[in-house]
Amino acid sequence: MEPSSLVVLPGIEAPATLARRPPPPRRSLSPAELAAGIRAGSRSSLSQAISLVESSRESDRARSAELLRLLADRMGDSVRVGITGVPGVGKSTLIEALGRLLLEDPTERVAVLAVDPSSPLTKGSILGDKSRMGWLSSQDRAYVRPSPSRGSLGGVASRTREVIQLCEAAGCRTIIVETVGVGQSEVAVEGLVDCFLLLMLAGAGDEVQGIKKGVIEMADAIAITKADGDNLVKAKVARQMVLNALHMVARKGPEVPVAICSSATGEGLQEVWGLVREFVDRAKRTGDFEARRARQGSRWLRQMMDEEVLDRYYRQPGLEAVLAAATHEVERGALTPRMAAEIVFRRFPVDGGYHPPST
Amino acid sequence: MEPSSLVVLPGIEAPATLARRPPPPRRSLSPAELAAGIRAGSRSSLSQAISLVESSRESDRARSAELLRLLADRMGDSVRVGITGVPGVGKSTLIEALGRLLLEDPTERVAVLAVDPSSPLTKGSILGDKSRMGWLSSQDRAYVRPSPSRGSLGGVASRTREVIQLCEAAGCRTIIVETVGVGQSEVAVEGLVDCFLLLMLAGAGDEVQGIKKGVIEMADAIAITKADGDNLVKAKVARQMVLNALHMVARKGPEVPVAICSSATGEGLQEVWGLVREFVDRAKRTGDFEARRARQGSRWLRQMMDEEVLDRYYRQPGLEAVLAAATHEVERGALTPRMAAEIVFRRFPVDGGYHPPST
Repeated sequence: MEPSSLVVLPGIEAPATLARRPPPPRRSLSPAELAAGIRAGSRSSLSQAISLVESSRESDRARSAELLRLLADRMGDSVRVGITGVPGVGKSTLIEALGRLLLEDPTERVAVLAVDPSSPLTKGSILGDKSRMGWLSSQDRAYVRPSPSRGSLGGVASRTREVIQLCEAAGCRTIIVETVGVGQSEVAVEGLVDCFLLLMLAGAGDEVQGIKKGVIEMADAIAITKADGDNLVKAKVARQMVLNALHMVARKGPEVPVAICSSATGEGLQEVWGLVREFVDRAKRTGDFEARRARQGSRWLRQMMDEEVLDRYYRQPGLEAVLAAATHEVERGALTPRMAAEIVFRRFPVDGGYHPPST
Repeated sequence: MEPSSLVVLPGIEAPATLARRPPPPRRSLSPAELAAGIRAGSRSSLSQAISLVESSRESDRARSAELLRLLADRMGDSVRVGITGVPGVGKSTLIEALGRLLLEDPTERVAVLAVDPSSPLTKGSILGDKSRMGWLSSQDRAYVRPSPSRGSLGGVASRTREVIQLCEAAGCRTIIVETVGVGQSEVAVEGLVDCFLLLMLAGAGDEVQGIKKGVIEMADAIAITKADGDNLVKAKVARQMVLNALHMVARKGPEVPVAICSSATGEGLQEVWGLVREFVDRAKRTGDFEARRARQGSRWLRQMMDEEVLDRYYRQPGLEAVLAAATHEVERGALTPRMAAEIVFRRFPVDGGYHPPST
């Protein structure tokens, strides 16, 4: 790897002069400049674009929309793989090992993103940590993005969708979305990916692993991790138990395959990735791939519109003060929430006409 | 109990002539008639009003709003208690036993409601089942309402809030809201009640019981159930273990009390209800009671407004067709969701002016 402040994705060589110049002071690039940078394979443009899309600052929103519009022709052409499992199952290690495997193909570019829900009660754990994927993070043809710290799960998912699109525009052919196996985030990630790989540990019941039945139902492929040394026999037993358990789970589509692997020895990794590839290839042949993307797209449209409608409504000039006054009346018990809502809607109707609130 | 089609809550005697008449064909009462019936203690008016509030039919919504307006002066004057625990912990049996205890006070009236979330993947279990609370359901001064089968959790919670208000208007002084201990529904129910009672089984770790740490954090009081016969010693041990565990859980406010009880022998029931009463009485003295209701009210206002804003937006004449066309373009890959959203917003702005979508 060249010592360079302007790291470029391969295919585009950094001009020697540029690479040797000292780093220029970082300034905000315009959407057009960012789009051009991403098309040219500039890693710093990609990073800056992702920060822009993740930003909740008012002033960044129009720029972010403009940027995504400019890159629309380069989106969609990748395989998006979700990887989940409880903390300790070895997600990062497996992703690093898979990345090594994938990058053997000199035309491959990989992005690793994380969806890390913070529950209202407990803070989520750290995913997509670059320090845990040291080798992969240092590769020119890999882009590892730690999870953004954001509020709602819905928000994280919709931002991640756009980050996926930016990585696709930058030429990434495989997008790995890492999430923690706690149930809620999987539902969100299932709406983002083409194939969902569930990692499980040998020698532990799934109750102990805290994996919900619903998560198993969502899996398109399963890998038993850490199948090496003394653990190898246990892993084989676990594989059979999981296969048996899968018969109990009502599920449409092809039977879910289960492989065993070890990120330490590399054993089984080819097979695990093979399961993912086979699933995707079959889905493309049967039309399930396109159907899944279509379903995800229409759901995304609706979610995006819901968020936008609310945002536009509450952003109306003067509304905040009226809502604050109404809230105060509710808090001191002078109005029921319904009556307070009526007052706000009388001043700020949604569609021009007044209707009494009826929800 | 009189054989009567018009069951009345006590305090108001059913006129003998009315009681002896054959049941009239059920017709839709007007909001004013329903409100008068509820004020007069008519059980059938209450049932009909609850069905109206739970209805998602367009034509019922204005009537429901009108009804709640008419009864606004009678709302809020009750103690609202949430009861949760995993299936098999004995929620129904305990509620029936507590109901028996409460109704010893001849001025008491009790309502039992259920919040039963159906997860997107697995169907929720049946709560508030009248057949499981046979004695209580047959009492004039008790009203047991099985859970409505509805879509989203948010929806269930907002309907349940209004059902609570209707029961209060009908004179119920204690409202018990039953829910299943799966995590998500508790967050919703915590926003509805003044005190949250968690039921736990003896002899099972809380992992085994499937109770999330977050649920324990939300509990205002805990009862170990089925503390009878051989189980009594185990229950006492469990009580100590729970008390120890509570020290680990960061929590504001007074220490959470833990009692043991048996619905079969009646042992400990007085004490369990005593914990609830003490919690509520102390909260009223310290101002926490009012503060909690105020917080719930302002959250409710915001949720209600969110639902209403979206509902009004999507109900606009002509929008459905435009959205369907845009969705079709997304599904066949001709437009990104963001571009499709822009098209819809250009035709149907929220606040009169057009802004490019930026979420």
